[in-house]
Amino acid sequence: MAGDELEIIAKHFAPLATHPAARKLEDDLAVLQTRGPLAITADTIIEGVHFLPDDPIETIAKKALRVNISDLAAKGARAIGILLSLSWPKARRSAEIARFAAGLGEDLKLYRCALLGGDTTATPGPLSVSVTAIGRPYRRRIPARADGKPGEDLWITGSIGDAHLGLRAARGELGSLPARDRDLLIDRFRLPQPRTRFAQAIARLAGAAMDVSDGLLLDAARLAHASRMALTLEAASLPHSTIAQRWLETPDAYQLRLLSGGDDYEILFTAAPEKRASVKRAATRAGLQVTRIGGASAGEGVSLVDSHGAPLPIPDMGYRHTLGG
Amino acid sequence: MAGDELEIIAKHFAPLATHPAARKLEDDLAVLQTRGPLAITADTIIEGVHFLPDDPIETIAKKALRVNISDLAAKGARAIGILLSLSWPKARRSAEIARFAAGLGEDLKLYRCALLGGDTTATPGPLSVSVTAIGRPYRRRIPARADGKPGEDLWITGSIGDAHLGLRAARGELGSLPARDRDLLIDRFRLPQPRTRFAQAIARLAGAAMDVSDGLLLDAARLAHASRMALTLEAASLPHSTIAQRWLETPDAYQLRLLSGGDDYEILFTAAPEKRASVKRAATRAGLQVTRIGGASAGEGVSLVDSHGAPLPIPDMGYRHTLGG
Repeated sequence: MAGDELEIIAKHFAPLATHPAARKLEDDLAVLQTRGPLAITADTIIEGVHFLPDDPIETIAKKALRVNISDLAAKGARAIGILLSLSWPKARRSAEIARFAAGLGEDLKLYRCALLGGDTTATPGPLSVSVTAIGRPYRRRIPARADGKPGEDLWITGSIGDAHLGLRAARGELGSLPARDRDLLIDRFRLPQPRTRFAQAIARLAGAAMDVSDGLLLDAARLAHASRMALTLEAASLPHSTIAQRWLETPDAYQLRLLSGGDDYEILFTAAPEKRASVKRAATRAGLQVTRIGGASAGEGVSLVDSHGAPLPIPDMGYRHTLGG
Repeated sequence: MAGDELEIIAKHFAPLATHPAARKLEDDLAVLQTRGPLAITADTIIEGVHFLPDDPIETIAKKALRVNISDLAAKGARAIGILLSLSWPKARRSAEIARFAAGLGEDLKLYRCALLGGDTTATPGPLSVSVTAIGRPYRRRIPARADGKPGEDLWITGSIGDAHLGLRAARGELGSLPARDRDLLIDRFRLPQPRTRFAQAIARLAGAAMDVSDGLLLDAARLAHASRMALTLEAASLPHSTIAQRWLETPDAYQLRLLSGGDDYEILFTAAPEKRASVKRAATRAGLQVTRIGGASAGEGVSLVDSHGAPLPIPDMGYRHTLGG
């Protein structure tokens, strides 16, 4: 890395260490005073895998944070702070570090959490950003992937498939799109919208819960597997944005691509049928679309059915983060 | 990554998740029940930067863990668990993942901590291993870099410079060395020895404390800076292993190389002069060499003096992890 690591930290990152646990990033570790349960999660994003080399450096910083915030929100928790391990390519201009830190700082403010520690290293490889996020659950119980029960409804927040279209748009694969739609989709790919405003409702109402990052179908299969049950998804009820719906009307469109594309960062959860009204009220309060997309039953695996309940083929079970190859 | 991420985790990593907080790695996060202070630190090691591409995969896993355990030990804390973010190059055989997990598992057992969570990703770049370690301090107070005071002694555990010689030996730059010495030195480079048996003594006796990873002189300068004081190191009292001493007698040897080489992972700390006997007793109990190498005074910066107290020049302030270039 150009410049001494300590200088970079002092100049760009120390101002983000707004929690006493961070020791102003002047020490070797963070010291957190704790009581009660902590939720801890870690996710890495890598250039050419989770983001494109020419994505703005600010949104790369934000995405690294947001994918972790999303993990916490989907489990009914809010972030307190993060540790950041930044592997910075020698070929990238070090002026970009200031913009990286500025982007991260904006989002730390937005999500009310602090930078607690971490490290920075010059790397001969691609830009890689590892974040460990530490959160507090809103309730003692943190919904597990394994907490689903047959008979429960299956729900999803927001809409599915925009980020996948955004990635394709960013690569120039959706040529005929109006510029405004294109920008909106690319934004969904670059900047996940963790459903933090729904995290309290998840803590209160969800059976099983998880965020959808590797494609709805694959992640639903994981939830079904962990809960030892079957999930049925109704194709017609799956929420897509207006733009995605317009795309679905074009000749080469194919709904399954939206269901197996990655980077949605919506919350997939189950809830008992008697909680339908509560889920909808909570969604209204959060200003968020939340859609019942199917249900759980005894058995295993995921099936997709049409509006008559007839099964649709599922040829591909998801996206495994392989932009690069 | 060859094979599904879930299978790899279930097969190789879930057996290492021996703490209930880990939720058997079947969920999206770890849930830690806490009371009192937690110490949290994160460090990444990258192929070609912190380890060599042909280092055994088991020792790479162990090094990633140990550099974090070392951070905790140097602050008077012991590890409870870790989160692992593993970026696995597509070109590396996936059979190596089993060996990586086996090596990590051995060390998790040795240091009595558990794998709590994390993620694995296929990367187009070099192998990169990010670890976040969570620890409990032995005492409420966790010694900071900034806790040193003029008048205190400066101490170091173990010996300085072996890992630097080990790196050079691994690169074939120390030709005339007996094979046994060569292996011992390379081992010091590949496998740091975190001074966990001295962590309780650090918690009880140290003023300022930190581990030495980027070269003794640079890290001493950081400690001096954080404590707003000067440190004087006596060249003749600096502890070197028998092998390093023999190397120092060869024509091209140069003590400053040992003091600015990286990867020592010893504990540098200050303590009040009245604690000398206690420090020595604790070292004996820990079966560890601990050497008084100088002292702190009003002022700033680090100076190195000969046996007459005359200053020696310090041309290079440390090693900044740039094996690659």
